Amino acid sequence: MSDVLQNSSSSSIVTSVAVSYEVKAQVDRFMADYAAAIDNDRLELWPDFFIDDCIYKVIARSDYDKGRPVGFMYCDNRRMLLDRVASIRSVNVFHPHHYRHVLGPTRILGERAGALLAETSFIVARTSVADGTTMIFSAGRYVDAIAFPNATAKLESRIVVTDSDSIDMLLVLPI
Amino acid sequence: MSDVLQNSSSSSIVTSVAVSYEVKAQVDRFMADYAAAIDNDRLELWPDFFIDDCIYKVIARSDYDKGRPVGFMYCDNRRMLLDRVASIRSVNVFHPHHYRHVLGPTRILGERAGALLAETSFIVARTSVADGTTMIFSAGRYVDAIAFPNATAKLESRIVVTDSDSIDMLLVLPI
Amino acid sequence: MSDVLQNSSSSSIVTSVAVSYEVKAQVDRFMADYAAAIDNDRLELWPDFFIDDCIYKVIARSDYDKGRPVGFMYCDNRRMLLDRVASIRSVNVFHPHHYRHVLGPTRILGERAGALLAETSFIVARTSVADGTTMIFSAGRYVDAIAFPNATAKLESRIVVTDSDSIDMLLVLPI
Repeated sequence: MSDVLQNSSSSSIVTSVAVSYEVKAQVDRFMADYAAAIDNDRLELWPDFFIDDCIYKVIARSDYDKGRPVGFMYCDNRRMLLDRVASIRSVNVFHPHHYRHVLGPTRILGERAGALLAETSFIVARTSVADGTTMIFSAGRYVDAIAFPNATAKLESRIVVTDSDSIDMLLVLPI
Repeated sequence: MSDVLQNSSSSSIVTSVAVSYEVKAQVDRFMADYAAAIDNDRLELWPDFFIDDCIYKVIARSDYDKGRPVGFMYCDNRRMLLDRVASIRSVNVFHPHHYRHVLGPTRILGERAGALLAETSFIVARTSVADGTTMIFSAGRYVDAIAFPNATAKLESRIVVTDSDSIDMLLVLPI
Repeated sequence: MSDVLQNSSSSSIVTSVAVSYEVKAQVDRFMADYAAAIDNDRLELWPDFFIDDCIYKVIARSDYDKGRPVGFMYCDNRRMLLDRVASIRSVNVFHPHHYRHVLGPTRILGERAGALLAETSFIVARTSVADGTTMIFSAGRYVDAIAFPNATAKLESRIVVTDSDSIDMLLVLPI
């Protein structure tokens, strides 16, 4: 799945496609709910945004553009996402930072086997609990394949392409 | 009103609801117009976005999550908003900063007595007039109850929940 | 064209107008595709977002508000945009920064001779390839006149109004 997406070279797609209001609204709500689950510290819900046989990958743009498989994080099924949440919850009693995703408009680029291919730019602001300062933690884009099992939107694949080659923490929370 | 909202614990609501295009578009325009009134230095229009018997509150996330009533600012009627604008205009002949709100998508979470309950993430960038530098002034979310008197959107209640516990200025402009 | 826009004093327009879903969706896709062309390093496509006889201008807010004609950049036809892209490509073999536009909702403010007048707030985050840090490069708003030749959205005029009086580089990439 990730190879197909990678090879389809989404960055060569420049014109997004028109969809009905119902589809657009469903996708927009899905994207916003995903971000809110993380930002509102409802991490346990994060894996529910994915199908069981999913891809979740965080990769630097420079690696993504060159087709390199490496990344900051790679999960190829939903169980790994659940494990990750459990790990975060067991290690971090107290969150030292708050995240805030602000998403740009989602560009729907096409369809593949019933899944919508979409890209969404994001900026994640991170606020330190200790000193209250806010800075940009990450800017980049989601490269997604969104399926609709039982008429519910779920991520088949989310590749988080970060503009930066270095993420300055252990990626405690997902992006 | 604010107690009801606080107790309904909006952060426990994870799935936004579908609404018609007409309602969604009206809410989206309202949110964007609110931000533009502040960013474009049309502060006198700011109170018009609220009903007379409104709540406007700015509170840190850590206080909001614990149900504490304190905040950086608290107004419980539109007259207080008008007073605030008059005060800003009388004190500040020259604005030392420009604000720029960038809003994420609005999540409509439900309805209560004819008002829509909604949340919207924001990042406010602040540019210094003196040196031209831009930084993040505040990141957080709006927790809103939006009424529709005479078919016009108005805020019954806007709780500005800031991710930071400290706001580094005297909150001269509203968020 | 730019004078008309300047004189119509868009900042005095406070209430955006309702449009059909088809129009709103077309404009939203257009805005997002424009940003993606720049952010995804597909600069050659940037001039295609404009009509031949276009205006593209980058100007500080303080100058724009006072009706001053000066700006950081001024192009009054599409050929100048093509020249600019050619110049960027010839000078910069390697991009030292990545851009990431995050756009707020587009406010449609009216119509003039078949073109929609619209404003959109933006934050452009810039990530250094050298050290991976991300900061806000520019915050501001687009003041646009969008035409629809052959049912395709194109910019008649885009005035990029930056909140900062100083842009700290030679504006290598367009905003």
